Amino acid sequence: MAIADTTAAVDELYDYCLATARRAQAASAELAVVPGAVKNAWLRRSAGVLRERYEEIQRANALDIAAAPSYGLTPAAIDRLKLTPKTVDGMARALEEVAALQDPIGETIEGSVRPNGLDIRKIRVPLGVVFFIYESRPNVTVDAAAICVKSGNAVILRGGKEALHSNKLLAEILAATALECGIPADAVQLVNTTDRGAVGHFLKLDQYISVAIPRGGESLIRRVADEARMPVIKHFDGNCHVYVDAAADLAMATAITVNSKCHRLGVCNAAESLLVHQAVAAEFLPQVAAALTAQGIELRGCPATRRFVPSAKEATEADFGAEYLGPIISIKVVDSVLQAIEHINRYGSHHTDSIVTGDLDAAREFTARVDSAAVMVNASTRFNDGGEFGLGAEIGISTDKFHARGPCGLKELTSYKYVVYGTGQTRQ
Amino acid sequence: MAIADTTAAVDELYDYCLATARRAQAASAELAVVPGAVKNAWLRRSAGVLRERYEEIQRANALDIAAAPSYGLTPAAIDRLKLTPKTVDGMARALEEVAALQDPIGETIEGSVRPNGLDIRKIRVPLGVVFFIYESRPNVTVDAAAICVKSGNAVILRGGKEALHSNKLLAEILAATALECGIPADAVQLVNTTDRGAVGHFLKLDQYISVAIPRGGESLIRRVADEARMPVIKHFDGNCHVYVDAAADLAMATAITVNSKCHRLGVCNAAESLLVHQAVAAEFLPQVAAALTAQGIELRGCPATRRFVPSAKEATEADFGAEYLGPIISIKVVDSVLQAIEHINRYGSHHTDSIVTGDLDAAREFTARVDSAAVMVNASTRFNDGGEFGLGAEIGISTDKFHARGPCGLKELTSYKYVVYGTGQTRQ
Repeated sequence: MAIADTTAAVDELYDYCLATARRAQAASAELAVVPGAVKNAWLRRSAGVLRERYEEIQRANALDIAAAPSYGLTPAAIDRLKLTPKTVDGMARALEEVAALQDPIGETIEGSVRPNGLDIRKIRVPLGVVFFIYESRPNVTVDAAAICVKSGNAVILRGGKEALHSNKLLAEILAATALECGIPADAVQLVNTTDRGAVGHFLKLDQYISVAIPRGGESLIRRVADEARMPVIKHFDGNCHVYVDAAADLAMATAITVNSKCHRLGVCNAAESLLVHQAVAAEFLPQVAAALTAQGIELRGCPATRRFVPSAKEATEADFGAEYLGPIISIKVVDSVLQAIEHINRYGSHHTDSIVTGDLDAAREFTARVDSAAVMVNASTRFNDGGEFGLGAEIGISTDKFHARGPCGLKELTSYKYVVYGTGQTRQ
Repeated sequence: MAIADTTAAVDELYDYCLATARRAQAASAELAVVPGAVKNAWLRRSAGVLRERYEEIQRANALDIAAAPSYGLTPAAIDRLKLTPKTVDGMARALEEVAALQDPIGETIEGSVRPNGLDIRKIRVPLGVVFFIYESRPNVTVDAAAICVKSGNAVILRGGKEALHSNKLLAEILAATALECGIPADAVQLVNTTDRGAVGHFLKLDQYISVAIPRGGESLIRRVADEARMPVIKHFDGNCHVYVDAAADLAMATAITVNSKCHRLGVCNAAESLLVHQAVAAEFLPQVAAALTAQGIELRGCPATRRFVPSAKEATEADFGAEYLGPIISIKVVDSVLQAIEHINRYGSHHTDSIVTGDLDAAREFTARVDSAAVMVNASTRFNDGGEFGLGAEIGISTDKFHARGPCGLKELTSYKYVVYGTGQTRQ
C-alpha cells in the first residue's frame, strides 16, 4: 500500500477513487450485519421519497435532456432518458418489489453435524463491494442500488455522462434515506466525475472492490474485462439460436422463431440465427420466411436455405457469428440435432439457445450438450431474464461459468462462509 | 486466434501448450455427458492398475529420488517424495473413496414452474477444463485427476520437476484406464515439460481453460494469480487466529490453542496468532505459555502479554501479519471481542479463525463479523479441511469470496445451466 499511497498524493483522481473504494469497503463491513428489516425499511422509505420529490428529480433530469444533443443522442435516445411522473413511480415500485423479496443473507445453504460432533454450516454472506458501470437510463441507478444493498453489498455506481444530473440526485436520495434508516450512507456512492480514467483506477482497486459488473456495449464490457483485477460478471454478446428439429410442431416453431427474433431487436436474448433440420426444411422454411419478412426481417441463408427461400441473401461465415441486434437473421439447414449442437457451440455466445421439438431424445441431447447459460425447449429465447426466471430482480446476465451463470439477481451477489460450532474439539 | 496461431507456428512450446489445451477442451465436452457409473468404473479400475503396477511405479519414482539431491531437496523432502507399496495403496484407496462420493453433475440445484407454465431448472454442470499447478508429492497427481474427472472436468496437470518421472507414469496410467472405460484419454494430461514458460502460456489460454488452481508456495500462487487470464481458485497464505474470550473455558482454550498451533506447523490452517481478552489474560497467558513452550514454540507478545509472560519476545507489527509456518506464535491482549474481530479482519488472511467462549453473544458477534472462509467456535482451526467438513475430497482451499470459499471439493469445480421446458411459450 505504501506505493499506492504515494501515487495518490500526486493524483487527485486516483485519490478520489481510492477514498471512494475505502468508504465503500468500510460501509460494506457494517452493511453485512444489518438486519433484513432495516434494508427493507430503506427500500420502502426511498420509494416514498422518490415519489415525494419527483418534481425535483424531473428538474435534474431536464439538465440531462438539455445537454443530450451535445452528446449526440438521437431523439429516440433522448426520449428514453426522459423521466416522467410515471417513470419515477416505476422506479419507486421497483424498490418496493425488491423489499418484498426474501433476504438472501444469513441463509443456511447446507449444514451437517460431523461424526466428531462439529456442527458445520455454510452460511450465505455478501460479496462486499460491487463496482457497477452502466450506460443505461437513470432507473438502472435505482435498480442496481436496491439489488446490491438488499444483498448486503455496498455499491459504487458509475453511470453514463448523459444521465449524470439525474443519477446524482437519485444516488443522493438513496444515500440520505440509508443514513436515516440505519445503513451507512456510503453503501450507495455515485462516481461524481465523468473522467474515463476513474474507471481504470477503480478496476485496479481489487483490495477494496469485490466484483465489477459492466452493463452496456461490447466495447465497454471488453475494456472492463481486460483491465479489471477483481472478478467481472458479464456477457459480451448474445448470438442466440432457435433450432427447429425434425420432430417440431411447425406452427409452434414459427411462433417461437418470430418471438425470439422480433419481440425486441436490440436485446441480448434475441435470436440472431435459425437452424432447421433438413427433414422439415422444405415445409418450414417458406412459412417462417414469410412470417419473418412480414416483420421486416432480412434473411441470410446457407445454400440449402436459399433453395427453399430464393429471396434470402447468401449468409457468410461472419453472419453465423454475428449478433445483429437488428432486423436480420441468419439461417442454416442442418443434418441432425448433433450438427445443430456443434454449430451452436462453435458460433454461439453461450447465452441462450432454444430447440423446438416433440422428440424427448432430441430435447435431452440438446439440453445436455449445448453449452449455454440457458437452454430452452419449446420456448422463446426471450425468456432468459431474471424476472421471467423468478429471480425477482436482475443486475445483469452472465455467460461465464465461474460463480454466476445466466440472470444475476440477489443470490448471485453473495458468497458464503463456513460457521463451525464445537465443544472443544481438537484434531487427532 | 489468427495472431495466436501465427505465434504458435514459430514457437514450439506455445504450440504444445495450445494443442494440449485444445485437446483438454475437446475431451471436456465429451466428459460433461459421461454417466457417473463410467466415471466411477474408471476410478476403481485405476485403483486396481495402480496396485498391480506398483513395482513399475516405484522404478519411475526411483529416478526422481536419484535426481532429487541435484534439485537441492533435503533428506526430509526426499523422504516425502518416496513412493512405497503403502503410499501407492493409499493413492488407490483415495481413488476408491472418490468413486464412492455422489456425482455432482446433473443435480437439480433449484427448480420451479413459472405462472406461464415454463418449467425452469438450474442444473449442475462441470466448469470445463482445470489447469492444476502443484509442487507436491505424486499422490496429488492422482487425487487431483480423480476430483476433476469425477466432477466432469478435463484436467491439465503441471507437477513439480522433482516428481516428473513418477507423475508421468501415474498420468499415463490414468489416461489409459480412462480410454479403456469410455472416457476420453485427454481428460487427464500431464504437462510433459518442466519449462517454466509453459505455465505462462497455459495461463493465457482462457479460451480453452476454465480455471487455474495453484497449490504450493506463496510465490507460485502470486505468479499464477498475476498472470492468469482465467479465474483462479487460491489462497495466498493462512495467518489464522485463536481468540480466547473473557467467557472461555481456559482448559479448552489451552487445548485448542496448542492443537491449532502445533498439530502440524507447516499447514495453512495452523494458528499463527493468539488473541486473549484482558479479563482472562493474567490467568490464561501463563498456562498457555507453558503448554506452547513445552511444544517448542517461540512466543512473541505485545507489551501486555509480556507483563504476564516475561519470557515472551517482543512482537512487532510484522509479527501480527506473519504466517510463520513454523514454531513461532504471536500473542496480543485485547480489550473486547470487537477489538479481536478488528485485529483479525486487519491482520488475518480471511482463512480460518476461532473463538473460544461460553458466551453466546460473543460467539454470534464473532461468527457474524469475522470475514473469513471458516469461523470456528470452540474448535481447532485445523478443522478447516475438505475431509473434516465432509466434502470427501479436496483440491484446495479458497480465501476468495467469488465462486468458491473454503475447502474446494467436487461441487466447487462445477457451474450450472438453466434448462427450461415449455410448450410453445412466447414472451408477451
